[in-house]
Amino acid sequence: MKLLLISNSTMAGEAYLDWTRPHISEFLNRHKVKKICFIPYAGVRMSSESLISSYDIYAQRVAGVFQTMGITVQSIHKSDNPVETIREAKAVVVGGGNTFHLVAEMQKKNIMGILGEKILGGTPFIGWSAGANIASPTLMTTNDMPIIEPASFKTLGLIPFQINPHYIDTNPAGHGGETRQQRILEFIMVNPEMTVAGLREGCLLQLENNELRLIGNKSLRVFRNGQQPKEFVPESNLSFLL
Amino acid sequence: MKLLLISNSTMAGEAYLDWTRPHISEFLNRHKVKKICFIPYAGVRMSSESLISSYDIYAQRVAGVFQTMGITVQSIHKSDNPVETIREAKAVVVGGGNTFHLVAEMQKKNIMGILGEKILGGTPFIGWSAGANIASPTLMTTNDMPIIEPASFKTLGLIPFQINPHYIDTNPAGHGGETRQQRILEFIMVNPEMTVAGLREGCLLQLENNELRLIGNKSLRVFRNGQQPKEFVPESNLSFLL
Repeated sequence: MKLLLISNSTMAGEAYLDWTRPHISEFLNRHKVKKICFIPYAGVRMSSESLISSYDIYAQRVAGVFQTMGITVQSIHKSDNPVETIREAKAVVVGGGNTFHLVAEMQKKNIMGILGEKILGGTPFIGWSAGANIASPTLMTTNDMPIIEPASFKTLGLIPFQINPHYIDTNPAGHGGETRQQRILEFIMVNPEMTVAGLREGCLLQLENNELRLIGNKSLRVFRNGQQPKEFVPESNLSFLL
Repeated sequence: MKLLLISNSTMAGEAYLDWTRPHISEFLNRHKVKKICFIPYAGVRMSSESLISSYDIYAQRVAGVFQTMGITVQSIHKSDNPVETIREAKAVVVGGGNTFHLVAEMQKKNIMGILGEKILGGTPFIGWSAGANIASPTLMTTNDMPIIEPASFKTLGLIPFQINPHYIDTNPAGHGGETRQQRILEFIMVNPEMTVAGLREGCLLQLENNELRLIGNKSLRVFRNGQQPKEFVPESNLSFLL
């Protein structure tokens, strides 16, 4: 498999997808990809008018960035036959937004299974935020609000552990409620067989040649039942998680 | 129906359930309730040992507070026959925690339907946070992490609108991601027929004699498709939401 699983599209104060550009560009170049299929279903309200115009705006925004890397973007929401479009894709990119909506739409369009098969067969896959979340077995460690009920919480299952994107260590001042760690420990209490990787902003996981590596400038926090959470520094070989 | 739907158990720096005590006490006295059935299923990790010891600790904690009001607490997790326990309850109290876990457990124990019928029949109901959330038609406007997949997102449906408990206006400094309002507007984009009530901390909704009132020291923010969000001050009659 060839995966680039990115915590977040944009660092505060920077241009859209800016920090991800060298990573995405190198990844796609390395795999000789010139055109990608984009899945915009997590983008619910890029426009306040309608879902379709939201997808339009989202796809245009992403296409604008990918164009600077010499990559053409075809958005699946323009396709009359999404299953066929996935089948023919040279690479697939899934953008962030609301994970529940992304998963519900992918299930409704019947593309979850075929996309999983394609990626297992070697098609390069890039996802950020919600798009990285769905590489896990389920959507269960998303930070998003359940705005729609998907047919199932099952997602692509490309990796055997759960990603928590946008992982943060402490609550900002004035924020009540659980810390992210407390939420993840609750998840593990109920799902003791599962591992969770807290992927901080500005970081990504890259899987190529059966090797999983952390790229970025912050460490990864790994949660497992019965163990203290462990930190892994950038460039760590994380293949033990596979 | 007789409902007390509370945003949050505890204000920062105060004792557990402290601000809610006069409201709960008056409500239960008014309806001549001396004993309540407590549902602790949202409390996933009150103990780090196991779910059962988490429920034990949660029920003890709540019983300690209710005792000071002269109310006896029976926790449903101690019952061999939860359906029968609900059927016989004089009043039902549902505590906060993780909404997905609460809903999944209530569905697994087959008590969602019977509890709804009881409350429609006049049994007083109190819920805070996740416990208030489930008075809505679905769990969809919870702030919680989906740590378990419930059989369905459908909840009690006692009121025809969605509550968002712990509603906050702006993100604390340093917190990226959507504001609560943005998340709720995404929900309404996908569910345009639904109304959402943003219930701020220190506030509750009381339904008695077919009249819905806001109690607390902050206003309620109401979101509807195609309208600007509207604020309703405490003591407002909100029966138009029913």
